[in-house]
Amino acid sequence: MKLGAEIALAHRLADAARAEIQPLFRSGIESEAKADASPVTIADRNAEEAMRRLIEAEFSGDGIHGEEFGVKDGVSGRQWVLDPIDGTTAFLAGRPIFATLIALLVDGFPVLGMIDQPITGERWLGVTGQGTTLNGQPVSTRRCRELAQASLATTGPHYFSQAEGEIYMMLAAKTDHKRMVMGGDCYNYACLASGHLDVVCEAGLKLHDYAALVPVVESAGGLMCDWSGEPLHAGSDGTVLALGDPARLEDVLEAMGGT
Amino acid sequence: MKLGAEIALAHRLADAARAEIQPLFRSGIESEAKADASPVTIADRNAEEAMRRLIEAEFSGDGIHGEEFGVKDGVSGRQWVLDPIDGTTAFLAGRPIFATLIALLVDGFPVLGMIDQPITGERWLGVTGQGTTLNGQPVSTRRCRELAQASLATTGPHYFSQAEGEIYMMLAAKTDHKRMVMGGDCYNYACLASGHLDVVCEAGLKLHDYAALVPVVESAGGLMCDWSGEPLHAGSDGTVLALGDPARLEDVLEAMGGT
Repeated sequence: MKLGAEIALAHRLADAARAEIQPLFRSGIESEAKADASPVTIADRNAEEAMRRLIEAEFSGDGIHGEEFGVKDGVSGRQWVLDPIDGTTAFLAGRPIFATLIALLVDGFPVLGMIDQPITGERWLGVTGQGTTLNGQPVSTRRCRELAQASLATTGPHYFSQAEGEIYMMLAAKTDHKRMVMGGDCYNYACLASGHLDVVCEAGLKLHDYAALVPVVESAGGLMCDWSGEPLHAGSDGTVLALGDPARLEDVLEAMGGT
Repeated sequence: MKLGAEIALAHRLADAARAEIQPLFRSGIESEAKADASPVTIADRNAEEAMRRLIEAEFSGDGIHGEEFGVKDGVSGRQWVLDPIDGTTAFLAGRPIFATLIALLVDGFPVLGMIDQPITGERWLGVTGQGTTLNGQPVSTRRCRELAQASLATTGPHYFSQAEGEIYMMLAAKTDHKRMVMGGDCYNYACLASGHLDVVCEAGLKLHDYAALVPVVESAGGLMCDWSGEPLHAGSDGTVLALGDPARLEDVLEAMGGT
C-alpha cells in the first residue's frame, strides 16, 4: 500500500486538531464529566469535529471511529480511528505530553498511525512497510539485550484492576526499577518508537487509544501486542504491550506469568 | 530583599545549564549507576559544573549545594542549591518535562527558586515577595473549593515506602481520582504554580529536589510544607506537600491521617 493521499490527509487532520487544541492548552477551561467519568474538554470535541469533516469530504466511503462522537460506518473496508486528545488529564494538568492520535485501519488492522503533540510540535508518523518518522526524520526503536536492563513505562497504577496491577508488578520486578516512569499516555509509545524506552505496559485501552500506536511502534522496529502476545486489532481486549526490541517478547510474557 | 544581581545570575545559570543539556537530550547517551542507583548523565554533571563556576566567580562567599558535586561551604549565610536535571528518568525516557532547579537559601530558607525546562524553553522564577513568573509573565495558583475536586500529582508510587504509600492512598481517596496524574517530578510543581494542578504529594525528596520549588509555588499564591504541615527548609525530612490553595491545608493533612 502506498497510501500517499491518506498520509497527506493525516497531516491535514493533525494540523486541524492542532489549530483547535493549541489555543485552549493552559487556558483554564473547565472539564465536564461524561459517562465514563474521564475529563472532556472543548478542545477535544472541536478537534474531533474538524477532523471528521475533513475525512468525510475526502474519503466519504471510509468509516470513522472517534472517541467523542462514536462510530460512522463506512463501505470501503477502511476506518479512520481518532482520539483528539489522548491524555486529557495530562492536558488539564498543563503537561505537553498528551497527543492527537490518528489511525487508518484496513479490515480492522492499523496500517497508518500518527501521534501529534500540538504544543511541542512533534509529529510521529508510522506506515506499514514505510518506516516511522518524527517530523519527517526516520526514527527507530533500540535494542534491549536483557529485560533486567529495560526501562518500563505505564500511565499509572490507578488504571489497572487489582489482577492487572499484580501482573504489571511481576513485569516491573524483572525490569530496571530505577528507570521506571509513570504518566505519559500515548507519549510513552512515541518515546519508545524513538528509542528512549524499552517496554510500555497498559490495560483498559480502547481502540482509539491504541490503533495509532501500532504502526508508529512497529514501523520503527518494535512490536505491539496484547498481554497474550496476540497482534492488536479492532477487537482486542484492551491489554497492550509495546516492546522496542521484539526479541524480548518471550521474556516479557514469561515475566507476566505466561507460559 | 531585592536580589536583583542574584536573579540575573540565576538566569545565567539556567542558560548555562541549557547549553549543556539541550544537545544531549534524546542523543542516546548512556546512563551510569551511582551510589544511590539513580541514573546520572553527562549532561547532569556538565550542567552543574558550568553553574558552579558562574556562582564561584560572582558570589565567592556563598555556599553551594549541588546534586552531583556535593557541598561547598560558604561564609555569607547564603547557599545556592542546584539540581542540574531533576527528573533524570524522564530525561532518559525522552520526555521534555524534567528541569534544572536553582535555589538561593538565606539562613537555610529558600527565597529564590527557578524551574527551567531546557527543551520547551519554559522558565519559572519565584522570588519571595516578588511573585512568580513563567518566561517573564506572572502566574498564580488556582483556588480549590473542595478537596474532592482537587487534582493530585506524584511522580510515582515506587518512590514511596510502604507506610508513605498508604498515607498517599488516603489522600488520593479524598481527591478527584479521575484527574490524578503520575510522573512529572519537579514539573508538577511548576504546573501547580501556573494553576493547572491542585496538590502535589511526594516523599524522599532531598534539599536539591525541593528547595527551588518553594519560592516558585509560594510566590504564586500556593503553599509548601512537609507532611506535618511544617515549612520546608534545609533540614526538612523529605516529605513534601504543595497546595495551590493554602485554604485546603487542613483538609489535606486530615486526609493523610493528621489531627
